[in-house]
Amino acid sequence: MAQKPSIPKGTRDFNPEQVAKRNYIFNTIRGAFETFGFQPIETPSFENSDTLMGKYGDEGDRLIFKILNSGDYFDKIKNGILSAIRIGEMFYLELSKDEINSIDWLRRESRNQIVQNFLKVSKHGGKNSIKNLPPDDVLDYIISTIHGNYRNLESSPSDDERQKVFADIYANTFLNIKSNSITPSISEKALRYDLTVPFARYVVQHQNEIEFPFKRYQIQPVWRADRPQKGRFREFFQCDADVVGSKSLWQEVEFIQLYDTVFSALKLDGVTIKINNRKILSGIAEVIGASDKLIDFTVALDKLDKIGEEKVKEEMLSKGISEDGISKLQPLFTLSGAFESQIESLKGILSSSQEGLKGIEELSFINNAISALGLSTSTLQLDVTLARGLNYYTGAIFEVSAPETVKMGSIGGGGRYDDLTGIFGMKNVSGVGISFGLDRIYLVLEELGLFPETVTKNVEVLFINFGDNEALFSLKAIKQLRLQGINAELYPDTAKMKKQMNHANKRQIPFVVLVGDQEIESNTYTLKNMISGEQDKVSLETLMSKIKKS
Amino acid sequence: MAQKPSIPKGTRDFNPEQVAKRNYIFNTIRGAFETFGFQPIETPSFENSDTLMGKYGDEGDRLIFKILNSGDYFDKIKNGILSAIRIGEMFYLELSKDEINSIDWLRRESRNQIVQNFLKVSKHGGKNSIKNLPPDDVLDYIISTIHGNYRNLESSPSDDERQKVFADIYANTFLNIKSNSITPSISEKALRYDLTVPFARYVVQHQNEIEFPFKRYQIQPVWRADRPQKGRFREFFQCDADVVGSKSLWQEVEFIQLYDTVFSALKLDGVTIKINNRKILSGIAEVIGASDKLIDFTVALDKLDKIGEEKVKEEMLSKGISEDGISKLQPLFTLSGAFESQIESLKGILSSSQEGLKGIEELSFINNAISALGLSTSTLQLDVTLARGLNYYTGAIFEVSAPETVKMGSIGGGGRYDDLTGIFGMKNVSGVGISFGLDRIYLVLEELGLFPETVTKNVEVLFINFGDNEALFSLKAIKQLRLQGINAELYPDTAKMKKQMNHANKRQIPFVVLVGDQEIESNTYTLKNMISGEQDKVSLETLMSKIKKS
Repeated sequence: MAQKPSIPKGTRDFNPEQVAKRNYIFNTIRGAFETFGFQPIETPSFENSDTLMGKYGDEGDRLIFKILNSGDYFDKIKNGILSAIRIGEMFYLELSKDEINSIDWLRRESRNQIVQNFLKVSKHGGKNSIKNLPPDDVLDYIISTIHGNYRNLESSPSDDERQKVFADIYANTFLNIKSNSITPSISEKALRYDLTVPFARYVVQHQNEIEFPFKRYQIQPVWRADRPQKGRFREFFQCDADVVGSKSLWQEVEFIQLYDTVFSALKLDGVTIKINNRKILSGIAEVIGASDKLIDFTVALDKLDKIGEEKVKEEMLSKGISEDGISKLQPLFTLSGAFESQIESLKGILSSSQEGLKGIEELSFINNAISALGLSTSTLQLDVTLARGLNYYTGAIFEVSAPETVKMGSIGGGGRYDDLTGIFGMKNVSGVGISFGLDRIYLVLEELGLFPETVTKNVEVLFINFGDNEALFSLKAIKQLRLQGINAELYPDTAKMKKQMNHANKRQIPFVVLVGDQEIESNTYTLKNMISGEQDKVSLETLMSKIKKS
Repeated sequence: MAQKPSIPKGTRDFNPEQVAKRNYIFNTIRGAFETFGFQPIETPSFENSDTLMGKYGDEGDRLIFKILNSGDYFDKIKNGILSAIRIGEMFYLELSKDEINSIDWLRRESRNQIVQNFLKVSKHGGKNSIKNLPPDDVLDYIISTIHGNYRNLESSPSDDERQKVFADIYANTFLNIKSNSITPSISEKALRYDLTVPFARYVVQHQNEIEFPFKRYQIQPVWRADRPQKGRFREFFQCDADVVGSKSLWQEVEFIQLYDTVFSALKLDGVTIKINNRKILSGIAEVIGASDKLIDFTVALDKLDKIGEEKVKEEMLSKGISEDGISKLQPLFTLSGAFESQIESLKGILSSSQEGLKGIEELSFINNAISALGLSTSTLQLDVTLARGLNYYTGAIFEVSAPETVKMGSIGGGGRYDDLTGIFGMKNVSGVGISFGLDRIYLVLEELGLFPETVTKNVEVLFINFGDNEALFSLKAIKQLRLQGINAELYPDTAKMKKQMNHANKRQIPFVVLVGDQEIESNTYTLKNMISGEQDKVSLETLMSKIKKS
């Protein structure tokens, strides 16, 4: 392999500067999470497939990275298909035509029934034949083909006829294998797609060890087989904080404070924390008589900024929302201004919807608390068009926008979901949480020049290597510097001085120390400031304090 | 899915306490890496399969987790097989028996030739038929079956005969699919197996941006489909530091200091840093006339501790090492004591081997430097039986043992490899590096009770929630505490006081604050020390200083 190696599309290498900048963001978020009382957990990179599959919709299932089973995975499929065909073969050899037709396999309805039919058959096919059944649709194909070939015969087929038919079945069965139907047979593990489902799994699995309400944070990578594009990767980190086991709205209040705390600590002033409530959206849909069209309604409303009032109305009309209903929305289209005044308008619109009024009550509570507590650098904004995650959020919905000067989508989001752990059989556990979008925050900080210079500081002083004696003398000093927490190193080879000085320059090391016979004799060090060019012969203590001060 | 969820075998969930303890180790190692001038990089969790496959031997290849391609991966295999069979079919319909036999497919030697033969055929088979050829052995099977069926015919086969033969071929080809031959067709990415090969790939890929010598560290998880057992996991972290681009022995010296620094910082006193040199082992093999039996020789020597001198000699004899040779080893069996005296004995044994003497010179240099610099809590020990990684290490070999009081294998290891990046076509780049075994270090610290208590400290103070007014008053104080870096939280619900106090106890939160009407009126806080039971009404400033002091 002499060609230059590469990495899979959608993945990234991070060089030292990038790692340092990413860690700066991670550490800031982690620090805030901890002062707010969240505790870290970590879950495995891959989960059992059935933990993840079916939790993110069909599109999500498709985007989950599956891990191939170890060992002879194809054998399992082969043997399953073979035993299914063989059982079929034996079955038809032994049964009469009447018996065959009396089993109405063509009208079976469920996997269970197919398996039951095969279990009957397996009396003929031997004890172990039923162990590895092929995937449903392959099994289905085998059964209907056998049935189709034999149902019209007057008597049992001749050996020759049978052989010919089964040769076709063998060949065609394999040609009928579909990737998505055999995937569960050859892959039983999959890479984490987000941190929420693994967290729900964790809570259910460890429910007896957990003290609720449980405030956890988790900062780990996730993987999605999405088409890579600018800013969208196949491996990326999520930074999530969630509370489970309490319905208190104080948590929504604290999550808004948490966003404000993190972005203030990152010096990213002027972010907008948008909030909405699913109950408001449901209430509006109810009021306009479109409760059954909640998604259509919110999808259209969400476009208000982009396509304007008229087009939104047209879209709603085309989705079957009545003119009368749409006319009731009029106040919504002109909704703007302060949180409180928006709330007042909403009260008018939603006066006849109990759910809607509940939503208003929740939003008011949160807004009043935030007003009383104050935010440092962010603004809380009510946005009734905000409709992310409507499939799972049941109360508050959050989304954070970068300051208006930066073109960037949302840099964070979250909400409340009333039945987080229900998918794993643990009912009535309410959760609420938020997430930080690391990659986008990185891009915003980069664009605005907000990474502190000290973040990328690495080695502070390089000792030039003039020979073994000098190196040993230097390493004694270096040992002391390191004990003081100063990042120091010795150039490993006795290369030309110019090369060593260049090395210091290229790596932007601010200090260089030169040690020759004179220095060893007088127990001193020649310290050169690589920025000012200043050069001094100093003691070890002075050396340390000069580097520390810089 | 109502059954309790689980995680894949060999993987782990980490609870808050475990994460905190693991991070303590990571941070200690990271801090030492940085004071020694190493810079962090990160690489993707999965690499292109051809970056990893073939780098760890057959066993390694087997243990690499492969990621299933997205989309209809089986279609590719199906279409490849179908086009191969169809081309064969057409080919044989059109060619005479003589033409068929004149192409000596049964004696073809390489994939390339098979493809060439198919390319000839593809003139008959259409333009695109050659695009997705099936895996080599499947292709081979198809070709030889077709050939075998037709070579003995007197003339072109009848349609019936042809059909029957090809029905068999269709069926049997799929039955002949072997998992490991189709894996490259359905999986093009694989999870990282270690950090060394991705690092080598990184260095080659980014060679123009890197300033050499390049000192990098990398702390990331790796995955191995190994049989899980006590202390062996399928997902685990590696912590590696390596230098590439210099052959200086000062680096070996610094790596020994680095081990000492990390274990001293972890308060794990008394570890033994064992060192050996491949050149010593080669030299001994040379001296006893067993240069071609280096591995057999070292495998036997490595067992000295366990099976004793006589058994080792027997094993060497059985591997074909001469009695005369073995007798020259005598001084080796009694080798012990100080580094210097071992070196002296080795000089005697190795006097006739240039390579061996070079190894001695290197070891002496390192030992002299370490003696002059001193180690804080570790001991450097020469161990000529140390033979790990002999497949790739070319100079120094390191292994670190936990203090003798703890039963535990090695907790770190490393060495020098003279051609790290050669596998990716970049020659003559020497590397040397060490690794820390996180999981084992964790177990050792746990067993010896060396985790500092502060490591698992999380929330320092819980405010009891008596109602919305009290909660808001509390949150104002909590905001101030958090700004001071104090981890503080409000109990989210107005549950019974006993329940809230129990929550504080279960989570081992040391302070609780009670805020009622009285406190709000007097702008004070009732602070309860949960350990002493002491209770005081204090101002916010006193509250802060009491918590900080604890």
